[in-house]
Amino acid sequence: MRGIGVGLIGTGYMGKCHALAWNAVAATFGDVARPRLVVLAETDQTLAAARAAAFGFDRATDDWQQLLADPEVEIVSIAAPNPWHRDMAVAALEAGKHVWCEKPMATSLADAEAMRDAARASGKVAVLGYNYIQNPAIRLIGKLIGEGRLGRLQHVRVEMDEDFMADPEMPFGFRDQSLSGIGALDDFGVHALSLLAVLAPPVEAVVCDMSRPVAQRTSEGGMRAVETHDSATALLRFAGGATGTLALNRAAWGRKGRIAVQVFGDAGAASFDQERLNDVQFFDARDPPDRQGFRTILAGPAHAPFGKFVPAPGHGLGFNDLKVIEARELLHAVAGEPARVIDFDAGLAIERGVAALARSHASAAWVVIPR
Amino acid sequence: MRGIGVGLIGTGYMGKCHALAWNAVAATFGDVARPRLVVLAETDQTLAAARAAAFGFDRATDDWQQLLADPEVEIVSIAAPNPWHRDMAVAALEAGKHVWCEKPMATSLADAEAMRDAARASGKVAVLGYNYIQNPAIRLIGKLIGEGRLGRLQHVRVEMDEDFMADPEMPFGFRDQSLSGIGALDDFGVHALSLLAVLAPPVEAVVCDMSRPVAQRTSEGGMRAVETHDSATALLRFAGGATGTLALNRAAWGRKGRIAVQVFGDAGAASFDQERLNDVQFFDARDPPDRQGFRTILAGPAHAPFGKFVPAPGHGLGFNDLKVIEARELLHAVAGEPARVIDFDAGLAIERGVAALARSHASAAWVVIPR
Amino acid sequence: MRGIGVGLIGTGYMGKCHALAWNAVAATFGDVARPRLVVLAETDQTLAAARAAAFGFDRATDDWQQLLADPEVEIVSIAAPNPWHRDMAVAALEAGKHVWCEKPMATSLADAEAMRDAARASGKVAVLGYNYIQNPAIRLIGKLIGEGRLGRLQHVRVEMDEDFMADPEMPFGFRDQSLSGIGALDDFGVHALSLLAVLAPPVEAVVCDMSRPVAQRTSEGGMRAVETHDSATALLRFAGGATGTLALNRAAWGRKGRIAVQVFGDAGAASFDQERLNDVQFFDARDPPDRQGFRTILAGPAHAPFGKFVPAPGHGLGFNDLKVIEARELLHAVAGEPARVIDFDAGLAIERGVAALARSHASAAWVVIPR
Amino acid sequence: MRGIGVGLIGTGYMGKCHALAWNAVAATFGDVARPRLVVLAETDQTLAAARAAAFGFDRATDDWQQLLADPEVEIVSIAAPNPWHRDMAVAALEAGKHVWCEKPMATSLADAEAMRDAARASGKVAVLGYNYIQNPAIRLIGKLIGEGRLGRLQHVRVEMDEDFMADPEMPFGFRDQSLSGIGALDDFGVHALSLLAVLAPPVEAVVCDMSRPVAQRTSEGGMRAVETHDSATALLRFAGGATGTLALNRAAWGRKGRIAVQVFGDAGAASFDQERLNDVQFFDARDPPDRQGFRTILAGPAHAPFGKFVPAPGHGLGFNDLKVIEARELLHAVAGEPARVIDFDAGLAIERGVAALARSHASAAWVVIPR
Repeated sequence: MRGIGVGLIGTGYMGKCHALAWNAVAATFGDVARPRLVVLAETDQTLAAARAAAFGFDRATDDWQQLLADPEVEIVSIAAPNPWHRDMAVAALEAGKHVWCEKPMATSLADAEAMRDAARASGKVAVLGYNYIQNPAIRLIGKLIGEGRLGRLQHVRVEMDEDFMADPEMPFGFRDQSLSGIGALDDFGVHALSLLAVLAPPVEAVVCDMSRPVAQRTSEGGMRAVETHDSATALLRFAGGATGTLALNRAAWGRKGRIAVQVFGDAGAASFDQERLNDVQFFDARDPPDRQGFRTILAGPAHAPFGKFVPAPGHGLGFNDLKVIEARELLHAVAGEPARVIDFDAGLAIERGVAALARSHASAAWVVIPR
Repeated sequence: MRGIGVGLIGTGYMGKCHALAWNAVAATFGDVARPRLVVLAETDQTLAAARAAAFGFDRATDDWQQLLADPEVEIVSIAAPNPWHRDMAVAALEAGKHVWCEKPMATSLADAEAMRDAARASGKVAVLGYNYIQNPAIRLIGKLIGEGRLGRLQHVRVEMDEDFMADPEMPFGFRDQSLSGIGALDDFGVHALSLLAVLAPPVEAVVCDMSRPVAQRTSEGGMRAVETHDSATALLRFAGGATGTLALNRAAWGRKGRIAVQVFGDAGAASFDQERLNDVQFFDARDPPDRQGFRTILAGPAHAPFGKFVPAPGHGLGFNDLKVIEARELLHAVAGEPARVIDFDAGLAIERGVAALARSHASAAWVVIPR
Repeated sequence: MRGIGVGLIGTGYMGKCHALAWNAVAATFGDVARPRLVVLAETDQTLAAARAAAFGFDRATDDWQQLLADPEVEIVSIAAPNPWHRDMAVAALEAGKHVWCEKPMATSLADAEAMRDAARASGKVAVLGYNYIQNPAIRLIGKLIGEGRLGRLQHVRVEMDEDFMADPEMPFGFRDQSLSGIGALDDFGVHALSLLAVLAPPVEAVVCDMSRPVAQRTSEGGMRAVETHDSATALLRFAGGATGTLALNRAAWGRKGRIAVQVFGDAGAASFDQERLNDVQFFDARDPPDRQGFRTILAGPAHAPFGKFVPAPGHGLGFNDLKVIEARELLHAVAGEPARVIDFDAGLAIERGVAALARSHASAAWVVIPR
Repeated sequence: MRGIGVGLIGTGYMGKCHALAWNAVAATFGDVARPRLVVLAETDQTLAAARAAAFGFDRATDDWQQLLADPEVEIVSIAAPNPWHRDMAVAALEAGKHVWCEKPMATSLADAEAMRDAARASGKVAVLGYNYIQNPAIRLIGKLIGEGRLGRLQHVRVEMDEDFMADPEMPFGFRDQSLSGIGALDDFGVHALSLLAVLAPPVEAVVCDMSRPVAQRTSEGGMRAVETHDSATALLRFAGGATGTLALNRAAWGRKGRIAVQVFGDAGAASFDQERLNDVQFFDARDPPDRQGFRTILAGPAHAPFGKFVPAPGHGLGFNDLKVIEARELLHAVAGEPARVIDFDAGLAIERGVAALARSHASAAWVVIPR
């Protein structure tokens, strides 16, 4: 069995994460051919060569288009800066490659639409790097909902908070510029939306507010007004009548990787926090009154595919492991099998949600999201 | 030193709580004359007599107006059903009594205004039963903010959730009727607003959404549409530019007494949950990078007036103890000393907040709150 | 119905706690006559008078023997320093009074035996102030065990830790002297043993180690060797074969009121920590594999007698409330009804446990506890 | 730069874990040549070939001695069943290979001694698979101790609990037989001892008790007495005077991977639980009284080598990541650099601790551990 030929563009935070996933997926799952790591592209040839050696890729290049031209490459991992996503993904699809592109999908809705169109036209698999949906803990919540254990869904709250923009002494930087995007909403809120995409009905209407916790930052010779919004909050209306809140803040001191989800139904509730990524809290209203309480369920082999990583429950998975699961799902999709992925269609829906939220903020009014 | 003469109207949930507070306040604080428990009023004379005996009151009556006429009564605890608050409070104030009235203030904004006017006209102390603000843990958060330990306030989130309306099998009842009020917003959300009143700047604008998690309930011979809203959510804009979210749900399975507050500033953050009412979480951004984290501060004698109850830290206070603190603050107010209370002016501001939130829901639009 | 006549000796930490309980018990439970607070004794007449006024006692005295001579006094709360317990309790019993004596029972095994003998001879109720056993959360664990929900009991761990002796800069004081007792073991470990008394089978054998975390402290003009042991640890063997550990430390930085109990059976487990005194953790091995986890059960009306304090679950009880429950149990005992108390017989068994643990430390060997 | 040549024996739980580590170590750390995965040995040739393909090994064999004879193999990962450890490790060392052997070291003290002797004689690196010590969270606790932030160490508690032996319905199996070893003590308690080895002074004396929570299990046609001890408890005396407790239980319902460590010094305290492997609790007694509390420190780039895995704090590591760190430390050792490993000398000390604990249980007496 010959493994799929992989090309990787980018070796930063997420490029390395892709590389680790490609190295681990066959050993972890044992039911898929080991991928062949064909070419790695970086902006600098020396760096490309060093990373290729470390990551186990056969070849290195400083020209991503050369990577796309390589006939051995069947799938392309795109982990380059966001503004490059569109060009790379469209070119890769047009070159007949499958695409695994990091989130956010693109820096404009037009670009995201172009990517979706290219994916449809190509007939290839095109998937976005929404790793959090792969967490066995999140899958468990989905399963509890699917099996009706929470009853009819009534209310959902999602918070996503980190503090990498919290320090008011940090000088003005790229993320403060409007050309980097909207702010918390598109930079990292898309993860929160990806969780809603797998756990809740479609969002039908939103009202959103955004703010600048740090309004200005030091720049050469003075202060410069921050252009993006590090904080965003919204009220949500879901199809079917459930309501919800969304709160995103990349300037929330003390929060390091918080993605707190609370889901309430008429027969129970569940909650989760990414800072404790192996725990699910589950409340079953059918438990006897004197023994009711949120159960802290530690992920384990009873929660697939946890057992592929460790046969013992409570021996936690890590952030990078989620990418390995994502790689496996991607390979399912490539093989034409059912897969849990955010493809470019679903990804575009997330981008449209972002656009609707931004529009709501701009107009200070409720916005209906078209289906 | 002669203690203040107390009359108590009502002996249910909160009436008992008042009685316990009046019995405990002098023993606990040791710096105030023991109140004289003069008259207790209940709807039924037999019940009134029984409760008076148990609660330590000298006399019992089934006529609250007789209680107000008693010259020995100097202060009146009003713990009767909400629709009675206006008449009782106004009459008590007009009779020259101080008033300690349970929340919510009234069942209409007009009633609340009449109560505020009566209080102003009387020159007497008129205070509402917002016990949660008395928690030493909440005071600590206020102190951290006041001392600048969180820096400039940027973002606040408040959630208040219980599940007493969560069961869809529960038959249609009083709380489902619109004559009981709006729903989560006025029935219990006022507590959340009382916390914002002591911890955050004034709210300047809101957008609110309300929903009916359980849309209809069984009634005689069929289903009946629920008229109130068990869930309410809102986005908040505070004076000075901070933003926030408010989420209230009395149909949130598994939540029993959750009042979760998160406060973020540019130098730190703090959080609290009433279900763990003796804990404060505090993050100090000035801590060294490798030793940063939310501190779980257990309330103790370092957090006044905890030490008046127990000299040992970590030996938690309970819900009823907060009322004892409130009684002490009330006596401060009666003595003309500075006191931490929600008086009828501050209470009216809370009711106006409620009205603005309801209006925002009705109009599906942002509403500016007049100052 | 005439309430029982109460005399209170001592108004410090626990004296105040008794006073609050006597003031609250009738109002809280509503099924017992309100006690008559007859006499209060303190060492100083002025203080006695002030406290009597604040606590609601009719009379004050600086002579505890006069209190015992008062014919209106039917029950005596003894909250004087430990060395006085024996004389006061024996005299009270001999005077025909019921006795409610604070823990620890006495400062020597001989004294405890004399007290037990006096109680037996008197035919009066004689109960010790072990408040932690009254916690509805602890009762719930007992109920889970009693109903077989944990299955056959296999293993128990108890930790009790505070930090009031942790500071090495604190000067040599009373608790460092051997005349104050053994140290952690008798000063506060007796509470841990009281929990074992209600939750586990009798302890049959122990091996114990004690240590001095702070070996010497500053005293006038130099350092003085600490004579007591602030830390004690032990292995336990229970009747029936279960094993356990006991760890006591009053010099454990950061622990403020930790009494952590873990109970394991062959069908489940439960745990508790007094620092979160309203929470029980319960694991039911019969839950389905993918939904197993410790449930955080918040105490509420389903856990008697919580509902006597607050009708809403999750609205926590406090440390002082436990004493109110204890007072009610005591009144049950006085009325000849079944009661959950540690009487002088059970208290003596705890003291014998302490003695066996101390003997084990001294001999560095296992010690069998006689039944 | 040519990577080290690796041979792997065994592909079960830990064999797979080694394989994943060898695949990830260069990509993760970027400062070490990518290992060459030369030969994989399994008991069955077909399985060996399949696993070699999945794990990325060049060759496969069903003969581990052939693996040792391979000149390209420079280091041997031994993840075969425990009884094989001695023969394989000694043979590998004698063949001039470095050895990375899974814990426990051996099934007898004599075997462990033979392994240590072979390691010393070989001059090669010989390291045991104690992964938990590599956790950045554990390293942080070590750093806090090393920097004096806890002050003088006074008291240590370690609990290690899982529930894979808890079900009384599980039939008699290998782990119930005495030929599998002692029970909790050697099967998994060695991990707890490895943590003590890096965090605390040497243990000087112990008293230990062991028990059989499940005394007999079903076997063919009846019940069979369990021979091993699923539970072990001990009191510890450390060099320098600190005391401690050790509790091990592989039949503790609800515990899935708990390794709870509490360390108390005279200036602070720290704690950790492997079920939340990215969190450290740290209490600093120097914090101001009203702001003291255990800080929940989430592992991040401030805690090396976390940042090699993820550049963002709070984006947790997993169980398998700890093995990658271990692999890197091993490569440090091979390169003659300082390394954080449990080598065969340190591993033998752990085994001697196990033997002393078992001896204490057998003799029901304190046992002094020779240095």
